[in-house]
Amino acid sequence: MAIRVLQVGLGPIGALIARQVGARAGVELVGGVDLDPGKGKEVGVTVSGDLATALRETRPDIAVVSTSSALERVAGTIEVCLAAGVAVVSTTEELAFPWRERPELARRINRAAHAAGRAVLGTGVNPGFAMDALPLALSAVCERVDGVIVRRIQDASKRRLPFQQKIGAGLSVEEFHAKVAAGGVRHVGLAESIGMLASAFGWNLDSVTDEIWPKIATERVASPDLEVAPGHCSGVVQLGSGKEGDLVRVRLEFEAHLGAPESYDEIEIAGSPALKSRVVGGIPGDLATASIVVNAIPRVLAAPPGLITMRDLPPAHWWSGVPTAPPPAGAVALPRST
Amino acid sequence: MAIRVLQVGLGPIGALIARQVGARAGVELVGGVDLDPGKGKEVGVTVSGDLATALRETRPDIAVVSTSSALERVAGTIEVCLAAGVAVVSTTEELAFPWRERPELARRINRAAHAAGRAVLGTGVNPGFAMDALPLALSAVCERVDGVIVRRIQDASKRRLPFQQKIGAGLSVEEFHAKVAAGGVRHVGLAESIGMLASAFGWNLDSVTDEIWPKIATERVASPDLEVAPGHCSGVVQLGSGKEGDLVRVRLEFEAHLGAPESYDEIEIAGSPALKSRVVGGIPGDLATASIVVNAIPRVLAAPPGLITMRDLPPAHWWSGVPTAPPPAGAVALPRST
Repeated sequence: MAIRVLQVGLGPIGALIARQVGARAGVELVGGVDLDPGKGKEVGVTVSGDLATALRETRPDIAVVSTSSALERVAGTIEVCLAAGVAVVSTTEELAFPWRERPELARRINRAAHAAGRAVLGTGVNPGFAMDALPLALSAVCERVDGVIVRRIQDASKRRLPFQQKIGAGLSVEEFHAKVAAGGVRHVGLAESIGMLASAFGWNLDSVTDEIWPKIATERVASPDLEVAPGHCSGVVQLGSGKEGDLVRVRLEFEAHLGAPESYDEIEIAGSPALKSRVVGGIPGDLATASIVVNAIPRVLAAPPGLITMRDLPPAHWWSGVPTAPPPAGAVALPRST
Repeated sequence: MAIRVLQVGLGPIGALIARQVGARAGVELVGGVDLDPGKGKEVGVTVSGDLATALRETRPDIAVVSTSSALERVAGTIEVCLAAGVAVVSTTEELAFPWRERPELARRINRAAHAAGRAVLGTGVNPGFAMDALPLALSAVCERVDGVIVRRIQDASKRRLPFQQKIGAGLSVEEFHAKVAAGGVRHVGLAESIGMLASAFGWNLDSVTDEIWPKIATERVASPDLEVAPGHCSGVVQLGSGKEGDLVRVRLEFEAHLGAPESYDEIEIAGSPALKSRVVGGIPGDLATASIVVNAIPRVLAAPPGLITMRDLPPAHWWSGVPTAPPPAGAVALPRST
């Protein structure tokens, strides 16, 4: 029987997830929740404005929560789901590893999950994969890791217009800084990825920083939607750093701008052996986030209760929904319903 | 308190694991088992010729079994460990995913593990990582996977002499085929990696093949140890393939020869999104195998009882042995002892 999924939040990412749930075998979209009930038409499902009602009426196995990057805004939503006995997977960036940055909220959600006997996971491409779970997976072949550098470099001209606007493409430098001050540019999640890596590797960090600059065009650059004059911003450069004393253990570089010569995701591990791995062309952000959420669903349902992270979850690999024979006895079968 | 490790088998890989266990925080090498008690000197530990005696005298938390690639030869050893209440991690290639190729042995070990309340894992760089666990991890960002190609290409001139000899470097073509017939060339594990991928993705394979050819030198090639004349073998090309009907779902290419222009590990996923990932310079085989075994130890001790595979284990990432603060409540702490 298919896993019953309720999609909470039908913005661009939520709608993408809803459509993927609708299209894939092994999962069934049973409803949606959004302030705008018109969103249901796009994804072909009844959308309710009230979460508690939707939970009661649709009886989901799991709720996918995609309403905000900020854990403070999402915590109440997660608790309502848990109170209804429903597991949660969320694209909330601050939930990917909240133990370092927001320990109070992490403990609160962890307690609620234990009380409900359900698991809660925050995931996505970044945080949740490119800068944390994938470097962790790669480190398995190392006898020693001294430091990790991850570079996520994106040619933003191929992304949707709201993303290009979010990263400040086309703004003057003054406008860029004003937009940063208003909280409208920063990619959320570098500190969470750093926290996950440090916790897994056993590094007690003394400082975590997250700095942001405009990328300034030296010549005219353009996307199909937008044009940037020289001296204006073509996008953003963001640098996360985690240190033990003066020693940089984790360095995360996020660049998204129009005219980046190449998109890629690169991981460098300093250690024994030293490793350098690159996803050529990069991992497409929105599709990857929707996919990892759906792929994680059976893992979250099979996980022990509590607030879990990608650090502790078996690989949330793709699955077709087709059962294989012979099924390995004693192993986790995918997909499964609770 | 450190995890107590007994190393069973002190050949080249076993000795490497023993030395790494001896050198790392959080684990302690409490003994070794080998037919040759002289092996103990190399790794600085008492070596016994009798497994049952060693288990009784050293009271390990886990045994690392590195005695053979063949599961049939290792199954009895694993059962003796389990009967003593000791978990097992093994470099036995056929144990990495025995459910498809050797279901009887898999069920037998799974039953013994359940009876003992302990977990058993087969791992290594290949099988166990480069051609199965890492492609699985990468697929997490896909909404659809149509097929997987993995290429592990190695310049064998940088590997130890026994490895160069194993892959047939320096042999005539006739000698190569005789060595293949005698079972001395083939890399064990392609079928196991194919089985793990197919089981995880939900592909019911109709055929799994594993073919082997000599790589023939067109000009003189050499390593510091060995010289290959034109027309002789510089190494091996091995191709594993898993099909549903006529559709190739998995294609694994393993090449190791003197004079390979570049070493690398490459994963290509055909699907949505299509992905191409490359470890530049490749993953060094022996060190990687020893490391992943040691890194997996806390995961095996924390796993539910039974025969498990890398498909179902949380990332066996590197860990320093240093506890981090604050410890995430409700999450698995690393390292831990049973």
